Amino acid sequence: MPRSDARRNYARILAVAEAEVAAHGAEASLEQIARTAGVGSATVRRHFPSRPALLEAVFRRQVDALAERAHALAEESDARTALLDWLRAVTTYAATARGMATALVRDDESMAHACSTTMTEAGEPLVRKAIEAGAVGADVTAADLIAVVTGIVLATEHHRDPAAEARRLLELAVRGISPRP
Amino acid sequence: MPRSDARRNYARILAVAEAEVAAHGAEASLEQIARTAGVGSATVRRHFPSRPALLEAVFRRQVDALAERAHALAEESDARTALLDWLRAVTTYAATARGMATALVRDDESMAHACSTTMTEAGEPLVRKAIEAGAVGADVTAADLIAVVTGIVLATEHHRDPAAEARRLLELAVRGISPRP
Repeated sequence: MPRSDARRNYARILAVAEAEVAAHGAEASLEQIARTAGVGSATVRRHFPSRPALLEAVFRRQVDALAERAHALAEESDARTALLDWLRAVTTYAATARGMATALVRDDESMAHACSTTMTEAGEPLVRKAIEAGAVGADVTAADLIAVVTGIVLATEHHRDPAAEARRLLELAVRGISPRP
Repeated sequence: MPRSDARRNYARILAVAEAEVAAHGAEASLEQIARTAGVGSATVRRHFPSRPALLEAVFRRQVDALAERAHALAEESDARTALLDWLRAVTTYAATARGMATALVRDDESMAHACSTTMTEAGEPLVRKAIEAGAVGADVTAADLIAVVTGIVLATEHHRDPAAEARRLLELAVRGISPRP
């Protein structure tokens, strides 16, 4: 098979895998992915030799998409809404990914660190613009915000609905526990 | 030895142990604790058969002290300051205790859960009064605030100075990432 076909094949399988993982979480079926993508199980297994490898590829695709979204949002005129929309999306992603990583009892420390670095870099222009617009304190950094999101996700991982609970606590941190002096 | 003497002995050893742990962290010397408390090493070991047992006793004493402090602060007239002072103390304690627990590579999940429940119950009157004073939103619970503190502590545990970093991020969550709409 020509290389470009193989790449298209991989991209299609990954897109199908992402939809399957969104629908069924860590239990997503590799056989179902093969059927929906119209390829053989062996082809899926060549790209993703194990379930963790599949989930990691899906997570990386989503992290890349969140980084791209940050670049697009940095062009928006409402810097506060742009930053908060992005933080909400990162929180939902992280809570979902965390739940699946925990379900597989994987050591995901290095991957979590890589994602955290990517997200911090992607968020920097959004934070800078929000500071310029006076919507965020001048001393706040993207690393601070990613640390708050990471903490909220870790603190809510045993909740019945981790993503919803993490989003709720993010809103509390956004408006402030007690903003008035 | 009469029971009341044994209890006093234990209380003195625990107080000395707390000071040693504050000064030297998880590396606190059981021999130094015995010397300062004026008892034999065997007596210290009878009360605390292992280093984790010693640290757990020190942590429990501090959690009890934080719960007592919450009761005292609930009588203060400035409900906002009372709640925030208490949250700051809980954050500093949790960051310090977490660092030591991690240093010992203990499975502290059940203890962390017990502490979190104690802190949530102790904080409830402070949160209620802060809501009555209009300093905190009516939908905020003590469990929410302990979850935010827990998350911040988990997210900062690999920092060079975890307690200082956790306190800094707590102030960000208190004043709000972006409180103005």
